[in-house]
Amino acid sequence: MTAPPLIFVLNGPNLNLLGTREPEIYGVETLDDIAGQLEDQAREAGLEIDLRQSNHEGHLIDWLHEANARGAKAVILNAGGFTHTSVALHDAVKAIQVPVIEVHLSNPQARESFRRRSLIGSVARGSICGFGARSYSLALDAAARL
Amino acid sequence: MTAPPLIFVLNGPNLNLLGTREPEIYGVETLDDIAGQLEDQAREAGLEIDLRQSNHEGHLIDWLHEANARGAKAVILNAGGFTHTSVALHDAVKAIQVPVIEVHLSNPQARESFRRRSLIGSVARGSICGFGARSYSLALDAAARL
Amino acid sequence: MTAPPLIFVLNGPNLNLLGTREPEIYGVETLDDIAGQLEDQAREAGLEIDLRQSNHEGHLIDWLHEANARGAKAVILNAGGFTHTSVALHDAVKAIQVPVIEVHLSNPQARESFRRRSLIGSVARGSICGFGARSYSLALDAAARL
Amino acid sequence: MTAPPLIFVLNGPNLNLLGTREPEIYGVETLDDIAGQLEDQAREAGLEIDLRQSNHEGHLIDWLHEANARGAKAVILNAGGFTHTSVALHDAVKAIQVPVIEVHLSNPQARESFRRRSLIGSVARGSICGFGARSYSLALDAAARL
Amino acid sequence: MTAPPLIFVLNGPNLNLLGTREPEIYGVETLDDIAGQLEDQAREAGLEIDLRQSNHEGHLIDWLHEANARGAKAVILNAGGFTHTSVALHDAVKAIQVPVIEVHLSNPQARESFRRRSLIGSVARGSICGFGARSYSLALDAAARL
Amino acid sequence: MTAPPLIFVLNGPNLNLLGTREPEIYGVETLDDIAGQLEDQAREAGLEIDLRQSNHEGHLIDWLHEANARGAKAVILNAGGFTHTSVALHDAVKAIQVPVIEVHLSNPQARESFRRRSLIGSVARGSICGFGARSYSLALDAAARL
Amino acid sequence: MTAPPLIFVLNGPNLNLLGTREPEIYGVETLDDIAGQLEDQAREAGLEIDLRQSNHEGHLIDWLHEANARGAKAVILNAGGFTHTSVALHDAVKAIQVPVIEVHLSNPQARESFRRRSLIGSVARGSICGFGARSYSLALDAAARL
Amino acid sequence: MTAPPLIFVLNGPNLNLLGTREPEIYGVETLDDIAGQLEDQAREAGLEIDLRQSNHEGHLIDWLHEANARGAKAVILNAGGFTHTSVALHDAVKAIQVPVIEVHLSNPQARESFRRRSLIGSVARGSICGFGARSYSLALDAAARL
Amino acid sequence: MTAPPLIFVLNGPNLNLLGTREPEIYGVETLDDIAGQLEDQAREAGLEIDLRQSNHEGHLIDWLHEANARGAKAVILNAGGFTHTSVALHDAVKAIQVPVIEVHLSNPQARESFRRRSLIGSVARGSICGFGARSYSLALDAAARL
Amino acid sequence: MTAPPLIFVLNGPNLNLLGTREPEIYGVETLDDIAGQLEDQAREAGLEIDLRQSNHEGHLIDWLHEANARGAKAVILNAGGFTHTSVALHDAVKAIQVPVIEVHLSNPQARESFRRRSLIGSVARGSICGFGARSYSLALDAAARL
Amino acid sequence: MTAPPLIFVLNGPNLNLLGTREPEIYGVETLDDIAGQLEDQAREAGLEIDLRQSNHEGHLIDWLHEANARGAKAVILNAGGFTHTSVALHDAVKAIQVPVIEVHLSNPQARESFRRRSLIGSVARGSICGFGARSYSLALDAAARL
Amino acid sequence: MTAPPLIFVLNGPNLNLLGTREPEIYGVETLDDIAGQLEDQAREAGLEIDLRQSNHEGHLIDWLHEANARGAKAVILNAGGFTHTSVALHDAVKAIQVPVIEVHLSNPQARESFRRRSLIGSVARGSICGFGARSYSLALDAAARL
Repeated sequence: MTAPPLIFVLNGPNLNLLGTREPEIYGVETLDDIAGQLEDQAREAGLEIDLRQSNHEGHLIDWLHEANARGAKAVILNAGGFTHTSVALHDAVKAIQVPVIEVHLSNPQARESFRRRSLIGSVARGSICGFGARSYSLALDAAARL
Repeated sequence: MTAPPLIFVLNGPNLNLLGTREPEIYGVETLDDIAGQLEDQAREAGLEIDLRQSNHEGHLIDWLHEANARGAKAVILNAGGFTHTSVALHDAVKAIQVPVIEVHLSNPQARESFRRRSLIGSVARGSICGFGARSYSLALDAAARL
Repeated sequence: MTAPPLIFVLNGPNLNLLGTREPEIYGVETLDDIAGQLEDQAREAGLEIDLRQSNHEGHLIDWLHEANARGAKAVILNAGGFTHTSVALHDAVKAIQVPVIEVHLSNPQARESFRRRSLIGSVARGSICGFGARSYSLALDAAARL
Repeated sequence: MTAPPLIFVLNGPNLNLLGTREPEIYGVETLDDIAGQLEDQAREAGLEIDLRQSNHEGHLIDWLHEANARGAKAVILNAGGFTHTSVALHDAVKAIQVPVIEVHLSNPQARESFRRRSLIGSVARGSICGFGARSYSLALDAAARL
Repeated sequence: MTAPPLIFVLNGPNLNLLGTREPEIYGVETLDDIAGQLEDQAREAGLEIDLRQSNHEGHLIDWLHEANARGAKAVILNAGGFTHTSVALHDAVKAIQVPVIEVHLSNPQARESFRRRSLIGSVARGSICGFGARSYSLALDAAARL
Repeated sequence: MTAPPLIFVLNGPNLNLLGTREPEIYGVETLDDIAGQLEDQAREAGLEIDLRQSNHEGHLIDWLHEANARGAKAVILNAGGFTHTSVALHDAVKAIQVPVIEVHLSNPQARESFRRRSLIGSVARGSICGFGARSYSLALDAAARL
Repeated sequence: MTAPPLIFVLNGPNLNLLGTREPEIYGVETLDDIAGQLEDQAREAGLEIDLRQSNHEGHLIDWLHEANARGAKAVILNAGGFTHTSVALHDAVKAIQVPVIEVHLSNPQARESFRRRSLIGSVARGSICGFGARSYSLALDAAARL
Repeated sequence: MTAPPLIFVLNGPNLNLLGTREPEIYGVETLDDIAGQLEDQAREAGLEIDLRQSNHEGHLIDWLHEANARGAKAVILNAGGFTHTSVALHDAVKAIQVPVIEVHLSNPQARESFRRRSLIGSVARGSICGFGARSYSLALDAAARL
Repeated sequence: MTAPPLIFVLNGPNLNLLGTREPEIYGVETLDDIAGQLEDQAREAGLEIDLRQSNHEGHLIDWLHEANARGAKAVILNAGGFTHTSVALHDAVKAIQVPVIEVHLSNPQARESFRRRSLIGSVARGSICGFGARSYSLALDAAARL
Repeated sequence: MTAPPLIFVLNGPNLNLLGTREPEIYGVETLDDIAGQLEDQAREAGLEIDLRQSNHEGHLIDWLHEANARGAKAVILNAGGFTHTSVALHDAVKAIQVPVIEVHLSNPQARESFRRRSLIGSVARGSICGFGARSYSLALDAAARL
Repeated sequence: MTAPPLIFVLNGPNLNLLGTREPEIYGVETLDDIAGQLEDQAREAGLEIDLRQSNHEGHLIDWLHEANARGAKAVILNAGGFTHTSVALHDAVKAIQVPVIEVHLSNPQARESFRRRSLIGSVARGSICGFGARSYSLALDAAARL
Repeated sequence: MTAPPLIFVLNGPNLNLLGTREPEIYGVETLDDIAGQLEDQAREAGLEIDLRQSNHEGHLIDWLHEANARGAKAVILNAGGFTHTSVALHDAVKAIQVPVIEVHLSNPQARESFRRRSLIGSVARGSICGFGARSYSLALDAAARL
């Protein structure tokens, strides 16, 4: 029996605060809530997910490399504030073979001007933003059919 | 018996050429192919879709107004080249109560710099881009659950 | 008996929604309300007005040409979102002999940065903005005395 | 018998030269001519006006404060060259309760690029420009109906 | 007997005013004059031309598609004010197989800064500008030898 | 008996309105309240303060020169709106030997973009902002120990 | 007996080198010296401080979260070079309820242009800079009275 | 006997400090020293000079108007820090018939970037800078021969 | 018998490499090939051409002056890389009476952003670009009819 | 017997992927291959090298401090994507006494515009880029002779 | 008998056309006329001048080096269009010990925006512009007293 | 016996002054000193070098072409001030087959902002800067192994 295809769901800085941080922007669901929903959705789709969060840019880069080394089917990446500043994450996404789907809970285009530029978006397979926790679910659906 | 909720799927300039225009960027499916798939998907979800295309900015604005007047549940909007230049479309999206979901076949962030700014994204409920024809299908799924 | 001098009152995209669209910015009067007031004011001043609205940039250009061909005394132009983007409208205003007065219900300088530049203002005879529906009435008064 | 509502008409740098300075841009009427016309118009409308001019930014700020302290109905402000540079005047307009109407004889949008930005316009109730001395008269009319 | 190769000559906003509009910039020849000259020139060269004008961006896009569908040999395009703003026209030129030659009566580089950028030029086969009505004739000559 | 060291506390445009102007930004204390508190604090610290306010840039420059001529120990300067525009004040601060401490009631970095640049900050000894009236008190404390 | 209110004093990259690094800019006191002084000052004020330093952006974010979770009264934050680049730290400061006071030893406005923008300042309660090690002491004083 | 031609020598902010302020940039001569030298030079050339200084922008504008009203032959203007920021002074120089010669002691092009733009230079007859006090003497020589 | 009208054909840096340099951009024809074709075309049109090439900006300026001194009918100028940087060539074109036609083999608008600005185009009579070696032939045709 | 002079060779994000990541840009040699070559070269030159890699910005800063504390002769630094964004690394390089040589495998000037600015280069002793793995070898040679 | 001090008067591109080129900007005097006047003025002042002109940037650099090698007292430099573009001339002026005085016939600040930046002015001893041919004479006077 | 591979070492403007010009930036070695060292190094490596210098951009372009025509193995190019401005040199480097190595004595990234952009670097094989005269030696070493 082969293992089900693996999807990494990587979350960047401050996403551990989800549910308590500016709920009018980010919603009331916690990252654990989202993890639970995604696990259910993954099981139905015959997928396995590995959801992680870190406030360290280096961990996200390490994990992207790990996803590649382990032959993951896709990475769903919410890079949080690193989205707009990290050339290193941009390089990591570009350096690996695993397709990366960018997600955001809110719509960066509708916020401060320093959130307009996405260094992730320009190397991601696709982007989904603005649907709150449902952005992840849509991304998993997209990942399933890559 | 009430009518099923209505979803407008509005397509802007040059999308009538889909399938023949730069297939390495936009894919080989035509707009009719996409319409067929969306209709199937809508039927299953108990929705009705109304897919239109125009090369005229004014028609897209008229249709956004019509969607509002007819109480549509959502608009899926691929504004094509108008995405980056039309303050009038921006205003139309903002002026109506119907939520608008922005879709793109390709990923504008990965293309010319004049495609970086989306005047639609900043007023849309959410955005989905980069998944080819599947962007529409994901958007319809998102619209269904709004 | 000669016909009274003719004033075109041309309205651009989304102004057909006036009264329902973001009333905290644009007020509760509809375009029909404004038309009624301007007609009363015109009659008193011995003028005739021709008020039109379109969401199509091309119609506004056609109508500016028509105003010129019919020897209108002035054009009052609220170009809506085209104000900030349309070089073609800029050229049309510059190309005709009829003086054009730019009006806006709200004050574009107090809004998003992409509303700061007016391509109409730089070729208009004068500009009046920020007085809601009364901007039109002041413009008609100004037009009467050109 | 109560005093008629008071309108301040404040004029900034170089407007004392009106009538002699670049008449092809600013017209041949002097500030005294304008004062005379406005007084007539004010009397008919049951208003009192207080027209002043100074080349000192500080005086304009002092007078805006004074208008507020004396419960003026409105301020008509032609801030001349300060329009484009004075954050202090911007703050003064924002700090008072009296509504301020910005006027200009000529159309700043049609002149040098450093005249494009109005620090007054973004906090004024409305703006009227390009009608020469008649800009003041239209502003007084607008002020009367605030 | 086969039909002669077809050249579309498409003209954008305000070009219907040619001959009356700012003749010191655009010359005194009307668009009909130009059509007449081009027809003579085309006949000699064994070509057929189809000259059209519209103030509607959408029509120009429709016509570019039509030129493609009808197998035109080339399109000569004077997009007028749309030259500097229309990503949609840029996309249309790029989307079709027919080569497009950009023409201008005057030299945009010598005019306002917002005319410096040509969204057409970057996807056109070549550009000819500054020779007044003769720009069209040179373009037809160039088209004949493509 | 020698005179206590002298601290100038100079306040720029609109600060005379403190307590009534946008209290949600600037607080409810008046400049007189602040003066009273600073005098108490100064007396305890064996200092003398001279608090002044003007809406005239020239007065602030004159007073900076006076502080220098009178051998003041320090100047606490809230230049208000001049902070962002006055090269002349920048030069005055640089021209004198007395150290200058910049204060602001609110945090300019969190407001409009034209408040981001401080021409005072780049030549001041130090800056304190965002603590409301307490910014002055902290500045006096800092001045005492220079 | 309740614990005294807790103040986090968080220090970013290179601040461990204080006292040896460019002393003409940053002074000769080490971070340990500053810690000692702040502890004395805190004891007198009935406060407890927790001073930490890291060259890792992720640690600073983790600590801001920890300060929030432990109900700290305030955070004094010298984010060093991250001040100018870290959207993630900006988000962390905004995401927590604990007020954050930004401190700098030197005055960033007087240095390289890439130090002009503070992503921390725009979300901090207040900022104190330019007083060397005394900036911390003033910040602790400000924190004590929040 | 007619009065000798009159030359105004107007000096802006901080020039009263000349001789004590940053002597490595501005030299050790005071404004009185310069006045003495210019009076000698004027006497020889059969001219009369009127040298004034103010830290108030408004005074400089008033004086430019006065120079015009009194039929001065020329104005030599060192506008100090106002050079780079004052649209009002720019307008005053443009509004009068008297030719204005811009002088600077140092070379603004060799200093901070905010000193690069001269709003005076663009409307002055000529400019002389970088020769210390001798800049005035050369300007008087130039004025004598206008 | 009078000499035939003279057309200078001036070529800037690296054009001597034509035919070997990046042939996918510049084509395989050498400058000698182009000279031969232009000579044939000139002979038929009763013109004389003088084609030169230099890698020295100074030579191009000298030759523009010479064309003027010798009463040439027109100059066809391909300034190569100087097109985008040389204010001196811009001045030379503007300084002479002979009309100058700008040519380029490729389309600068479709290449690197530093090739977007043409300092020649803004002072040339007209511009022709993108037709390879045929750009010269079209320019000669245009020159013949000036 | 004294230890040989020590050279740190520090490598930033994604350089652990060398040899597999975009080999057309970065070459096929792994970081281990490079380490091997440098060790041979170092031995011959009587040097010792300490080659490390991390995806964590903080580790690179820690290691720069360590190099300083251990009296290293030089640091060879390939900061990868941090090169273009990290003010903190810039500060670390500036804060230490050990000279730093910047290396890059490829030539950042020839890539995306966000790679043009090097925050490392402006404080490094020298820079070597574009020679693939040989960039390191040249840097070690340069370090040997510092 | 010692040779009189030597002043180089170096003139850049297009200045050989003086007197015929755009006389409304540059006046009717030729470079020979100016040379004659300067020789007379030099003789009286006990100076020798060496006036040269070239359209080649390289010659101007060579001559600046020569002035240095021959111990010239000063260089008067009108670099024409090179003023705004030549880093090489900037470097040459900075590299030599001889003081350089920048002159211009017209006032570059009052012309096109690409003439605003002077790469010469930032390294010259002083600048004189706008006085036509008299700019040279004033510069020679200034040079005499260096 | 075949000739040894040839390396051109081309030096741009002001490099003839090496050793006397700003020695704190460029060092005390003359270009002749460098030539001597490179000749020794070349001989050992079995190479021949041809070192030239010119202040004329055109000569550098001519020489790059010559290097190509003579089949040189590499060009070492220090383009001095042309580095930052010359599109023509950029084109020349791109046009030839010989690989070009960019060298600089100092580190342009650490100097004025107009030295940040290298038009040479973006087309060079590699770049070496900041090592003084040793930059050339490292470049020769790199060239030897191309």
